[in-house]
Amino acid sequence: MENKVKRNLPDNLMSEMGLKPFETVDIGNPEVNRVAPKVRVTTGADKVVNSLEEVIKRTVQDGMTISFHHHFRNGDFAFNKVMDLIIKLGYKNLTLAPSSLTGIMNDKVIEAIKKGVITDITSSGMRGSLGDFISHGGLKKPVIFRSHGNRARSIEEGEIKIDVAFLGVPNADPAGNANGQEGDAIFGSLGYALIDAQYANKVVLLTDNIVDYPNTPASIKQTQVDYVVKVDQIGDADKIGSGATRFTKDPKELKIAQMVNQVIVNSPYYKEGFSFQTGSGGAALAVTRYLRQSMINDGITASFALGGITKPTTDLLDEGLVKKVMDVQDFDKGAAASMAKNKDQQEIDASWYADPHNKGAVVNNLDIAILSALQIDTDFNVNVMTGSDGVIRGAIGGHQDAASAKMTIITAPLVRGRNATVVPAVETVVTPGDSIDVLVTERGIAINPKRPDLLAAFNKVTNLNIIDIKELQKMAEQQVGSPKALEYTDNTVALIQYRDGSIIDTIKQVKE
Amino acid sequence: MENKVKRNLPDNLMSEMGLKPFETVDIGNPEVNRVAPKVRVTTGADKVVNSLEEVIKRTVQDGMTISFHHHFRNGDFAFNKVMDLIIKLGYKNLTLAPSSLTGIMNDKVIEAIKKGVITDITSSGMRGSLGDFISHGGLKKPVIFRSHGNRARSIEEGEIKIDVAFLGVPNADPAGNANGQEGDAIFGSLGYALIDAQYANKVVLLTDNIVDYPNTPASIKQTQVDYVVKVDQIGDADKIGSGATRFTKDPKELKIAQMVNQVIVNSPYYKEGFSFQTGSGGAALAVTRYLRQSMINDGITASFALGGITKPTTDLLDEGLVKKVMDVQDFDKGAAASMAKNKDQQEIDASWYADPHNKGAVVNNLDIAILSALQIDTDFNVNVMTGSDGVIRGAIGGHQDAASAKMTIITAPLVRGRNATVVPAVETVVTPGDSIDVLVTERGIAINPKRPDLLAAFNKVTNLNIIDIKELQKMAEQQVGSPKALEYTDNTVALIQYRDGSIIDTIKQVKE
Repeated sequence: MENKVKRNLPDNLMSEMGLKPFETVDIGNPEVNRVAPKVRVTTGADKVVNSLEEVIKRTVQDGMTISFHHHFRNGDFAFNKVMDLIIKLGYKNLTLAPSSLTGIMNDKVIEAIKKGVITDITSSGMRGSLGDFISHGGLKKPVIFRSHGNRARSIEEGEIKIDVAFLGVPNADPAGNANGQEGDAIFGSLGYALIDAQYANKVVLLTDNIVDYPNTPASIKQTQVDYVVKVDQIGDADKIGSGATRFTKDPKELKIAQMVNQVIVNSPYYKEGFSFQTGSGGAALAVTRYLRQSMINDGITASFALGGITKPTTDLLDEGLVKKVMDVQDFDKGAAASMAKNKDQQEIDASWYADPHNKGAVVNNLDIAILSALQIDTDFNVNVMTGSDGVIRGAIGGHQDAASAKMTIITAPLVRGRNATVVPAVETVVTPGDSIDVLVTERGIAINPKRPDLLAAFNKVTNLNIIDIKELQKMAEQQVGSPKALEYTDNTVALIQYRDGSIIDTIKQVKE
Repeated sequence: MENKVKRNLPDNLMSEMGLKPFETVDIGNPEVNRVAPKVRVTTGADKVVNSLEEVIKRTVQDGMTISFHHHFRNGDFAFNKVMDLIIKLGYKNLTLAPSSLTGIMNDKVIEAIKKGVITDITSSGMRGSLGDFISHGGLKKPVIFRSHGNRARSIEEGEIKIDVAFLGVPNADPAGNANGQEGDAIFGSLGYALIDAQYANKVVLLTDNIVDYPNTPASIKQTQVDYVVKVDQIGDADKIGSGATRFTKDPKELKIAQMVNQVIVNSPYYKEGFSFQTGSGGAALAVTRYLRQSMINDGITASFALGGITKPTTDLLDEGLVKKVMDVQDFDKGAAASMAKNKDQQEIDASWYADPHNKGAVVNNLDIAILSALQIDTDFNVNVMTGSDGVIRGAIGGHQDAASAKMTIITAPLVRGRNATVVPAVETVVTPGDSIDVLVTERGIAINPKRPDLLAAFNKVTNLNIIDIKELQKMAEQQVGSPKALEYTDNTVALIQYRDGSIIDTIKQVKE
């Protein structure tokens, strides 16, 4: 069958797994039933156990679904500690359902797959050796990729039923009250992990820092926790920061950032009380810096900034340019450390952030989202999952979710090396073009024809180089030529869910 | 049948309603299944509706269960506004499931019962005209009284299934983010209402104060809220405070408070990092004052104070004598106003506070609880529900819950007017004697024989007037005589649940 973004979906797999093809970005008003965990009652004053192996034996059984969070990113010591033991103990047929998989986890996941320990994976994304392994058919069943909001939805509706959540934290009291804000390896918001803590049948905290009861703020509560495992070191604080934390010096990135800022300040949404999500990476930081100067010049303050948060954004909070930071994860130490100090930096869970089956999530109130792309096509469909070689090397993250903003801006260089970014058709559709409004490249700005209002608004502004996306695609093609179509086998190695759970695309096994 | 506190329970009613008799205060380690609400999906940026009538029509149907909180106490304007319209609209057979019922609600509840609008009630308690009305057989079906922790348990396990929760708040943004800490009618912690917000299928906020999005801290979250109704005034701030906020001058109360403090400081629990719950009322405030002085003298600080919180307790927090205040409700303006200012005054919901079917609630970590009694018998069973005339005039509140403390102290004068407080058998068993450790009266201190460790510890202390509870009962009898047994009809007007949902006693209709 073909779905509404013209992707052929494998009929047998779709019916076997009871999946629906992507139809529309309009979530509508369905009535959904939430689920709830089983609770093993205890008075639970002291849940500290020193043996992780003992706790795994008490909680994990063959065939179960286990989960982790990725807030430590490449500074994570929790995942490998747990998986080492799970592999050693010889478990089979586990489903791995982390909020995402970072590079530091790759070797262990591959080992677990090879040994039959892990037979199913759902994640926001994967990169490096693991992405390569999966793209070459390393796992028999297709990986299911879900956005952060969709993962929350899937857990809240029972599509992902977590049996045991293993959650690393920089502090916990003996009863299990924990947060991400104090200790040696702080990461700030526990946003993604809060869903696991609320919905998993068994919750195991791992920490190197047992503090006095009662530990507050209790992002994770004692009422949710079964065991607290004391470990030597839970994470490497220096590797928690993801991506750039410094202002870029790349002239192309700077130019794009300036152009993005021009789009923002000339949009109908740029007014007192507006809201935005910028994301991480050098270009995003640069946008935040330009936007800051514009807001000061224009005397405009934002009601909130959303998302993955960086220090330049918490700086805006400290300066009073942003009134609230709604924080589902922190991308650097500065933003993480700020949370304990500023009560207007509100920790939010992934459901509040972006579950589309909600009575309103924060993304639904977002004016402007700035997002990146590996590829974007002339229908504005965005790929953030597969590289130009067709291999998995990305993550949906909050991409589909934040694209619910009133104005979603994709920033991308026209080409990367010898590969076009603006293409006739993306290799993998992750975020449908219907939810993308503006593309900013260094060569020009394209407006989605579905937004004539924006086109009219921007056409009034001089110095904005507005251009048809098809022209951008041709420019890119002129620069780097037309690549030979990639070759895949018939084997589906991954399914890309849209945020409502429908299938927006699949990823096929690459030919050697 | 007779239960373990020797109360005869009506067999037919017990089997009809599928109820179990009270067995033990030991909750054990059952595995329980939690439930979850239905969610009607919306993007929900603006949920403000001006017509309360319209919202009621959209949400309420005959036979449904509706809920309210009592954090406004006698300053509550929300309950009567809603019930007026529900009565006017002619609904039938509703179950009323508020966290408790305060005097200001009495007339409206009686009217609704008489008109067949309300046919079932569960509450923590009731007083005045409503207690009188129920005790005289005003409602056909028995009221079910539940402690705050048991209400949380019942909601979390689906025994109370709230269809629509009407929750008054002193502020809310248009998407429904709300707290109890800012506005004209603040009450501080939203502890009891948080359970309704989490588990009700429909959540309607009523407020006189619509604030900018995003409103933080969001004790109630936009993800939980269906409608925000703007009303003229949501409460009378001056009537929110319950009971005494001043130090008592009653010499008997002062003496008891001093004796309670002696019990505390001479107990094995009084050491660095101990924890306590004192409750409200003049005597409780006096205990807090004496305890404060002892802590200063002895250089001892408490890890946390729990419960319904008063200003003298938040003062201890400000002074650094208490490290954390775990706050499920605030009894006065001072404590309510303190919450926004002190991050160590942690708002906790009723489940975290005291749901016995939890992975550990805060009451399970409590060292010392000071609780009151209308009557206590020689088995240490406590009545906080019916007066000496057998009429309902009280509330379980957190009584059964806090009695899980390591040392639970009941404070009571030996007699009140012409009635003994210490009696051979209480009129109504609310909290079983097995969870009570010490009784302090102005005439002496009785230790539950089940606590020989405490008896040994206190016997070492001079000046503590330790006495057998049977002696206290005789003293009381000598003072006021032996009253004639009260006369009741066979009609059961109320069931008293223990915190695990078992039936600990019933209340019969009083004879005219």
